[in-house]
Amino acid sequence: MSALPTHQLFDPNDPVFVVHEGGKLAVHATSQLRDAADLSLLYTPGVADVSRAIAVDATLADVYTSRRNTVAVVSDGTAVLGLGAVGPLAAMPVMEGKAVLFKHFADVDAVPVCMETGTVDEIVDAVARIAPTYGGINLEDISAPRCFEIERRLKERLDIPVFHDDQHGTAIVALAALLGAVEVVEKALDELTVVVAGAGAAGVAVTRILLAAGVGDVIVTDSRGVLGPDRVAEEGLPSHKADLLRDTNRTGVTGAIGDALEGADVLIGVSGGTVVERDLMRMAPRAIIFALANPDPEVHPSVARRFAEVVATGRSDFPNQINNVLAFPGIFRGALDSGARAITEEMKLAAAHAIACLVEHPTAEQIVPSVFDERVAPAVAGAVARIAARR
Amino acid sequence: MSALPTHQLFDPNDPVFVVHEGGKLAVHATSQLRDAADLSLLYTPGVADVSRAIAVDATLADVYTSRRNTVAVVSDGTAVLGLGAVGPLAAMPVMEGKAVLFKHFADVDAVPVCMETGTVDEIVDAVARIAPTYGGINLEDISAPRCFEIERRLKERLDIPVFHDDQHGTAIVALAALLGAVEVVEKALDELTVVVAGAGAAGVAVTRILLAAGVGDVIVTDSRGVLGPDRVAEEGLPSHKADLLRDTNRTGVTGAIGDALEGADVLIGVSGGTVVERDLMRMAPRAIIFALANPDPEVHPSVARRFAEVVATGRSDFPNQINNVLAFPGIFRGALDSGARAITEEMKLAAAHAIACLVEHPTAEQIVPSVFDERVAPAVAGAVARIAARR
Repeated sequence: MSALPTHQLFDPNDPVFVVHEGGKLAVHATSQLRDAADLSLLYTPGVADVSRAIAVDATLADVYTSRRNTVAVVSDGTAVLGLGAVGPLAAMPVMEGKAVLFKHFADVDAVPVCMETGTVDEIVDAVARIAPTYGGINLEDISAPRCFEIERRLKERLDIPVFHDDQHGTAIVALAALLGAVEVVEKALDELTVVVAGAGAAGVAVTRILLAAGVGDVIVTDSRGVLGPDRVAEEGLPSHKADLLRDTNRTGVTGAIGDALEGADVLIGVSGGTVVERDLMRMAPRAIIFALANPDPEVHPSVARRFAEVVATGRSDFPNQINNVLAFPGIFRGALDSGARAITEEMKLAAAHAIACLVEHPTAEQIVPSVFDERVAPAVAGAVARIAARR
Repeated sequence: MSALPTHQLFDPNDPVFVVHEGGKLAVHATSQLRDAADLSLLYTPGVADVSRAIAVDATLADVYTSRRNTVAVVSDGTAVLGLGAVGPLAAMPVMEGKAVLFKHFADVDAVPVCMETGTVDEIVDAVARIAPTYGGINLEDISAPRCFEIERRLKERLDIPVFHDDQHGTAIVALAALLGAVEVVEKALDELTVVVAGAGAAGVAVTRILLAAGVGDVIVTDSRGVLGPDRVAEEGLPSHKADLLRDTNRTGVTGAIGDALEGADVLIGVSGGTVVERDLMRMAPRAIIFALANPDPEVHPSVARRFAEVVATGRSDFPNQINNVLAFPGIFRGALDSGARAITEEMKLAAAHAIACLVEHPTAEQIVPSVFDERVAPAVAGAVARIAARR
């Protein structure tokens, strides 16, 4: 509880608060309950026949329950937006918003599951225990590095798709945007040097997908500077950074972010920090800058434009919005429709290509489709489902 | 997986299966998402203001999220209807059905949470961990005696209502029906001897509420016969039965159910077993029989009618249906509306009286309102909320 009176905390007439009154989600029955006959079909005694059938053949749960179209949006509130560890209650509006997007863009019935935080074991156990209810698990706003192990262990344990959107949604859309951007600047993926500023959830996943997509080299920086060979012996270097170090920075750059940007083709900011002009000016000609921190990009687009031919942010008020909503609704739509048991690396790459393909002639002002482009979710879903069908 | 082919398991054209196709629930957004302006209110960046406010004042989660109107219908699938431990997937259609009833009768947004079973500790931990998402927890179809400790510990741990419907819903409606029935047979509650056949979840809760309501004496039977003084030393007698023994059977009856029925005024069957005619004929004049096992009552109503003036079952095709749906929607509606942190014994008694009051002149053919009587849920909700308001 706050010492602040509510009237100082916010304005209840602010449209944001008005639209949030009573929450953003409701549950509806898909058929009418009018009389005793309906009751005996929807509930006892009729429902017993359905339960009995599922008890004998578990696959029938995907046909005769809402499970197959329902995704849990799971958070423990430890890394909510840019707000940090605000807890499960404060995470609720974000998870509800995510559920609204799932429904709107891909007709997925998503429900928030906001949990008290705990050890990795505790979070994994809780999610695995409730998993029979759902056709998929979207992990959200869970702090790094816990999020990596939580996702890995849930993927091992469950036979439904588990997808940490802060990692993979961001990575897929960033790759889609890069595919458009390289067309504009006329460079080849395998000759690019990309600097990823930030080694958290998004930084790790962006790096992984870029390497998988065939990008020439990636150099990752964190708050201490470049992840270079001088860091190998660093005490307490987390394993996800040690892993990154092994697979990136082939030229062995060391130092600060400016050293990494020397001659680099692309900067992808996922750190929330700031990158200064004297570092940006070291980038190669025809550079690309994605400054994805929200609401304050690592470089303001008007500044970035002076050093780069293509600039993108996470914001809707500048061109080239890199927004996860281009990916996650279609990803789950495709996975649920195809009965995929996991979201594979191949599916993520295919999703990025499907998004990029929708911009036929990329320009500096448009490298990705609009978030309201209705072709996006079906295209992503189709790409995911086609790969699932091949298994 | 079954060895049976699906076509032998059920008929997919059976109306029960047709109405279950794709499940019985869907999630909807409560406001429209039309453009970038809507997106910025419902999701980022606007949603961050709401999260920030809740992080400072947690009570705002009840105003600006769907939590306050959302109830989790939690089961581990260990005691589903009369089917037994069929597991979480087979429990899904029942929990969805329950959610349909919550919505229809009381506009409560209920969501199924079907979990892998485990130890009492594991179930309690999982439910407590996800509890921030919900305004209340409806426990359902969890096997006895685990259900008693699970409910008790969750009530201790959580500050939202936790209600095991198989216990308390049944108990509330049984008491409501008894209040009507005693008017018909012109007997006083405090002079009644009631035999409760069954010492599981429903039997325990029915016994407790009858004693709290002032019934003269209750005698409980289980599969071994009467819970009488000869059972005190019984090896392995579970603690919930030892507790019952202490508070019931004041005359110290021993033996079989027939011995308990000698001169008894009321038989309430919640066992699923059978009570035979030669035992029923030992009951007092103007007797009352509630045979609540579903779908097969302990005594067929046509047989019961020969030994009792008032007969009720759980079925919709006979008069006097004792159905939990008379209680749980209104119970949660009242608790959510009033911000009650628990469903108290007093609320349960008040709910039973509120239901009974709706039948102004009870007759042998009508001791409880119809499940479709639209006055029921508001009356129950009002009774619960009035008590909550007094705290």
